[in-house]
Amino acid sequence: MANYFTDNEDLQYYFEKGIDWEPIVRFTEYDYRTQDGYKNAREAVDFYRDASTMVGKFVADEIAPKAAEIDEVGVHLEDGEAVEPAAMTAIFEQIKGLDLHWMTLPRELGGMNSPLMLYFINTELFGRADVSVMAHHGFHGGMAMAMLAFSLREGTTEWDPETFEITRTRFQEYIEEIGRGDAWGCMDITEPDAGSDMARLRAVGEQDEDGNWFVSGQKIFITSGHGKYHFVIARTEKAEDPEDPFAGLGGLSFFLVPAYEDNDDGTRTRLATLDRVEEKLGHHGSVTASLTFERAPAFLIGKRGEGFRHMLTLMNGARLGVGFESLGLCECAYRMAKAYAAERPSMGKTIDRHEMIADYLEEMRTDIQAIRALCMHGAWHEELAQKIELMLTIAQPEDELEAKKLHRALKTHKRKARRATPLLKYFASEKAVEMARRNIQIHGGNGYMKEYGAEKLLRDALVMPIYEGTSQIQALMAMKDTLGGIMKNPQGFVRRTAQARWRALSARDPLERRVAKIQQLSLSTQQHLIAKTAADKLRSVQSKPLAEWSQAFLKDWNPKRDFAYAMLHAERLCKLLTDELVCELLLEQAQKHPERRDVLERYLERAEPRVRYLHDEITTTGQRLLRALAGVNRQDEQAAS
Amino acid sequence: MANYFTDNEDLQYYFEKGIDWEPIVRFTEYDYRTQDGYKNAREAVDFYRDASTMVGKFVADEIAPKAAEIDEVGVHLEDGEAVEPAAMTAIFEQIKGLDLHWMTLPRELGGMNSPLMLYFINTELFGRADVSVMAHHGFHGGMAMAMLAFSLREGTTEWDPETFEITRTRFQEYIEEIGRGDAWGCMDITEPDAGSDMARLRAVGEQDEDGNWFVSGQKIFITSGHGKYHFVIARTEKAEDPEDPFAGLGGLSFFLVPAYEDNDDGTRTRLATLDRVEEKLGHHGSVTASLTFERAPAFLIGKRGEGFRHMLTLMNGARLGVGFESLGLCECAYRMAKAYAAERPSMGKTIDRHEMIADYLEEMRTDIQAIRALCMHGAWHEELAQKIELMLTIAQPEDELEAKKLHRALKTHKRKARRATPLLKYFASEKAVEMARRNIQIHGGNGYMKEYGAEKLLRDALVMPIYEGTSQIQALMAMKDTLGGIMKNPQGFVRRTAQARWRALSARDPLERRVAKIQQLSLSTQQHLIAKTAADKLRSVQSKPLAEWSQAFLKDWNPKRDFAYAMLHAERLCKLLTDELVCELLLEQAQKHPERRDVLERYLERAEPRVRYLHDEITTTGQRLLRALAGVNRQDEQAAS
Repeated sequence: MANYFTDNEDLQYYFEKGIDWEPIVRFTEYDYRTQDGYKNAREAVDFYRDASTMVGKFVADEIAPKAAEIDEVGVHLEDGEAVEPAAMTAIFEQIKGLDLHWMTLPRELGGMNSPLMLYFINTELFGRADVSVMAHHGFHGGMAMAMLAFSLREGTTEWDPETFEITRTRFQEYIEEIGRGDAWGCMDITEPDAGSDMARLRAVGEQDEDGNWFVSGQKIFITSGHGKYHFVIARTEKAEDPEDPFAGLGGLSFFLVPAYEDNDDGTRTRLATLDRVEEKLGHHGSVTASLTFERAPAFLIGKRGEGFRHMLTLMNGARLGVGFESLGLCECAYRMAKAYAAERPSMGKTIDRHEMIADYLEEMRTDIQAIRALCMHGAWHEELAQKIELMLTIAQPEDELEAKKLHRALKTHKRKARRATPLLKYFASEKAVEMARRNIQIHGGNGYMKEYGAEKLLRDALVMPIYEGTSQIQALMAMKDTLGGIMKNPQGFVRRTAQARWRALSARDPLERRVAKIQQLSLSTQQHLIAKTAADKLRSVQSKPLAEWSQAFLKDWNPKRDFAYAMLHAERLCKLLTDELVCELLLEQAQKHPERRDVLERYLERAEPRVRYLHDEITTTGQRLLRALAGVNRQDEQAAS
Repeated sequence: MANYFTDNEDLQYYFEKGIDWEPIVRFTEYDYRTQDGYKNAREAVDFYRDASTMVGKFVADEIAPKAAEIDEVGVHLEDGEAVEPAAMTAIFEQIKGLDLHWMTLPRELGGMNSPLMLYFINTELFGRADVSVMAHHGFHGGMAMAMLAFSLREGTTEWDPETFEITRTRFQEYIEEIGRGDAWGCMDITEPDAGSDMARLRAVGEQDEDGNWFVSGQKIFITSGHGKYHFVIARTEKAEDPEDPFAGLGGLSFFLVPAYEDNDDGTRTRLATLDRVEEKLGHHGSVTASLTFERAPAFLIGKRGEGFRHMLTLMNGARLGVGFESLGLCECAYRMAKAYAAERPSMGKTIDRHEMIADYLEEMRTDIQAIRALCMHGAWHEELAQKIELMLTIAQPEDELEAKKLHRALKTHKRKARRATPLLKYFASEKAVEMARRNIQIHGGNGYMKEYGAEKLLRDALVMPIYEGTSQIQALMAMKDTLGGIMKNPQGFVRRTAQARWRALSARDPLERRVAKIQQLSLSTQQHLIAKTAADKLRSVQSKPLAEWSQAFLKDWNPKRDFAYAMLHAERLCKLLTDELVCELLLEQAQKHPERRDVLERYLERAEPRVRYLHDEITTTGQRLLRALAGVNRQDEQAAS
């Protein structure tokens, strides 16, 4: 009887000690105001533990053994509808029976009112069993929650002012349909010529005389796109002037579009056409669809022009989700490699005793602990940010001090979630690929054969650094946030640098001193990038200390031109920032729970030379390539003029 | 009309300038003694160029367009025989028509008498079109050449003492059968429980009263194992005493075993059973077979107990071959990525103008040039080593000075080929995986879809770091050769260190100074590994300079115990040694041909921080893990006693 929850010591650490459940439970339970909710964190966590234990057993016993079959059979299009493997359908019938789609939905809508944190932990458990089942599962409850969240944000949800319980919400019927497992949702963003560059989107939303909205256009690469409820981003504004707030990304709006209606006679009327189901390298149980919308009736979410903002909300959650999904796959790859290495004899001992393989396995184990630290940190802040925002919507505290405190907390949680999310998405998805490949390599020739299942994990992993924003996009986001933060508040940067220097020298705990040295290198790298960027923009500031840089420098940026040097090194910076954040999180744990010192020590040993390398690369390379690129661009401009 | 030979500027550089053809042609043409051979290098190279131009066109026009179909259809087992895709069969009919299997075979046996170098260059061209076609093609002429080489080595080939032309050879009939394209060979080494650890092999060779040999046992993962002629390694000696030269690897012998006979009535009598054709991640056009030999009639090659040595000969050639195969795949991945990036618009320009993507592409281009430098260097020395050895077998020069010169040259070429081969196999195959993955990533979502062909390249690439000796085995070999070399000749090491220091300071050419600094770091890392290894063995030598270390230290090694530290860091050392060798080779080119300075500069810029990192990692990490491993091993020993 396998159980992916109880067999995982590191995950158990978080559940029992590492996660501060109290604020999460308090906000999830509407400040303990309802009759039938939990009355304290202990009660709630007992339930969460039971639920995760049940999921851990279910995914290990029912999903993992079917993963190879689902991969083998795959999905395909037949008469305009997607056909899933029978094993997949059977699993989703079981999920229905366990009421898992209800997990995070509010009790008053029929749900179990579990926190997002629990949902994400389940994402890891599902991901370890089979990522294509996990992905499809995620498009149920997650999308129902999004419907509720968007309705709350736009003000179309009502609640009881005493208990804060929801009494009515705009998409209630759809939410309940998803909770029952009779439908699911998806996000329709990408188009044939618009991936990372969303300003190129061509789908349109139009309104008729009666105010009804219709969406037209083509969407591709839609995960679980054979579902009923589509969040679609489409252009509603046609402003040509780039200064117009409705131009570019500002001209996009967000819609909920049902793709079909099931009729009473058992037939289905399609409102959007399923054109194609992709043949992919992996994720064979998961449908990746192309759809055409031709004046499909649509519900506008919020206001016109808010599309990009709403999409980011969904995307942020999805990125955290990919972090947990990648974590599950890493755990699976690591355990498969470890079990094989412990059995396979070579040169008089099993190969896990060979130095190189032992090193690989230890690094995998340590990196998984690093990813989980990032995951838990990101999810905790994201959940608190969302729940506090909701609390402030439902009931702004009358006590002014209390309100201020909440607003401050919201800002902090948002900032921390925003810092962690791209780093987590980048790191976890890249590590999923790395560990899956390493698992193949440890299996030797057997790793290349379908029979052993190692190759399937790599095929599945390879989409993770691509979907929900490529690794490159994550790196650019992290870089822009980091450097932008310094420009907005150079004094804060100078202060952090001084503090890191002080801690590196005088902290009592040697681990704290080592982490401070990593922070110093990170800050010094950031300063270098800012200085290089400044050099291109304003030669005069270079010799002055950062704190004295003029306001003039901080204004009028042309990101495309001025950031070239930082863009070149964005991925390296992203790796460095990830090492820094991981070390900070593990240090916090080590200072609270001495048994975690070992994790930090293992991580630091590998991170220290790596961070020195990244600092070295960023500060000594790249100028030649940038000069060459600038030359090419100039030639283009001349040719064009 | 594509042509993979003429469209490749870097390859053209080697053909026209980079390769010193003269000695190769001279030895290949038996010192220009034959009537119908080429009379000088220029004549021969003109023919080689024509042949490669023909192959470059053939693979681009006839193989590349069928690669997707071959991948899709794949191979399978039917009634005990492997069935190939029809497109594959058609290609091999064309190859027959072009007489390509004859390419490297001697004229007097019906061949074109081309050098190995040309064969390897064709391997790159085939690999760029489709690696599974390339692999299968390689098991034709390559195996016929091996039959001839083994016969020469064991003394069963006769030749004309005037012209050096071969008049009779042991496996002549088989060689001609292969040349005609009617059969091919393969190497049967791996067994279900014996991969890298060859001492565990269980197949046996037995002799009957009349002296006839028979082979019994099971072999797995045999590439092109549906072929007729199998080189099989099997145990013939059962020495128990580990001191006996026939114990362990010394008890293995080498056989040529026909797996079937085709009867006149069109039926086939199998002498070895084809049990299974593997379902693999990639290389779908290439058969990977399991076979059972039950007292199959066999020809012993050379003497009993020479099996490991003969296998290494085959394996070395095969490892160089994987280097060129990987190079072809890298070239394909790079060109696919570059073409896509030059077309795909994002944020107002094509993505090849985005700094990060431009950096990826430039690194790929540079690494391909590095791989090709290693390939050409390794192949050149390997070919000269083989041909000089052959020349010394056929006709030891009467002039003693001349003979001495040849023996010295043989030693040098062997040493250089031996140094380059594991580094090339490691580097090229790992880069093939890296570049194929990067090509997917540059394609974004399209990279994950079967339609675009990017994912196929990665599936194909992933076997390269596994077959013909895993990357880990290559790293261990490179480490053992390098450290063993220092132990054998510590004075030489001290001298090289002093020379590198001098060049780093005083060479006129700044590029030479930079390369010397890389050599210094490499040597310093090696010294560190030796010192750590010494510390475990003999504490007293640590404080003395290396040149004064006692003979006692240099004797009585227990590789398993004493090399633990170096084994832990073998892969890092292997990367560092590769960077060092690549820089040396590119410097040599740059000093001869100024247009090559740019290649070295591009490579150095990335290699410099990387080499500093590897030095840093090797000298600062790993002790903790080794202590932990030693503890586990001690516990095992205690439990066992």
